[in-house]
Amino acid sequence: MVEDVHVRPGGRSARVRASVHRAVEELVGAESADTLTIPAVAARAGVHPTTVYRRWGSVSQLLADVATSRFSGDVVVPDTGSLAGDLERWMGDVATDLADPDVLALMRATIGSGPEGGCACTVDRHEQLGAIIERERARGGAAPDVERAVDLLLGPLYYRAVFSSRPASSQWARGLVASLLADRAPSL
Amino acid sequence: MVEDVHVRPGGRSARVRASVHRAVEELVGAESADTLTIPAVAARAGVHPTTVYRRWGSVSQLLADVATSRFSGDVVVPDTGSLAGDLERWMGDVATDLADPDVLALMRATIGSGPEGGCACTVDRHEQLGAIIERERARGGAAPDVERAVDLLLGPLYYRAVFSSRPASSQWARGLVASLLADRAPSL
Repeated sequence: MVEDVHVRPGGRSARVRASVHRAVEELVGAESADTLTIPAVAARAGVHPTTVYRRWGSVSQLLADVATSRFSGDVVVPDTGSLAGDLERWMGDVATDLADPDVLALMRATIGSGPEGGCACTVDRHEQLGAIIERERARGGAAPDVERAVDLLLGPLYYRAVFSSRPASSQWARGLVASLLADRAPSL
Repeated sequence: MVEDVHVRPGGRSARVRASVHRAVEELVGAESADTLTIPAVAARAGVHPTTVYRRWGSVSQLLADVATSRFSGDVVVPDTGSLAGDLERWMGDVATDLADPDVLALMRATIGSGPEGGCACTVDRHEQLGAIIERERARGGAAPDVERAVDLLLGPLYYRAVFSSRPASSQWARGLVASLLADRAPSL
């Protein structure tokens, strides 16, 4: 990941970053992933290729930066008063986000660009799930391990989005919460 | 998917296909996915680029063909006499396959190449899981829906392999079978 130490809101650096990110999202959404090169991104963003090379280094680092930014803070952690309610609303929202073809295209391109790509798409989801589970514990309730919740909630949801032709509807995604909360198998 | 109507074992067409597939696997394994272009594959396979364009059309169709071939028949459907035994052995074998960095690199590149890439990696896994479940029914046993099994077995396993930094050990993968077989949530 590239540390973004130069950004201040409204500064030139922030404007460059915003146009480069937008150029990546547009190119990734436009069918063929093969065309995503640094010169193509730079041309579309209206900046010099050297600027992009200097700041991001490679297509895979650039995609990881765009994905981390796109998949952070876009889904709100709900507070419905119960663990089941929080998880159901959150899973419905994540599934709705994943139903957007542009989101899927960015996710696929990021995965394809290198070994770290997948994690860049989900690091914030893990943190959000951790926050939901922590809040239930703070309420005095029992809650599954975060990793168990990742396995049984995000596992099936992202699998359908990437590997399966079955739709990952938000209703179906909310239903996964019942399996997690009924889960009596030993923690692994 | 490109229909492969010209292949006969030992024929020129089969030899071309084998060298092109090998070239793709080697290039995909060699770090940077950006270098996977049809001219690069053709050069490495020692064939004319036109041959590759004519037969596969695009990098994404070529990758889907290589992935379908690589992920078919490589894992054997076991027959241990029980559903739990069959599923545990099979999940352990699939997890072992996914622990190979070359397998992961091919899977990531195939996903990154287009919307159909993910399915090309898992279509045979769905058929194998269906066969295991069918056999249990033929024995007179009760078995979960195939789609439920896909969600709760392949979901967590492929999620860890692609999206998470947690290891997807074969022991952990075998443990997922307990969650599936203990699952009492309503089918979705």
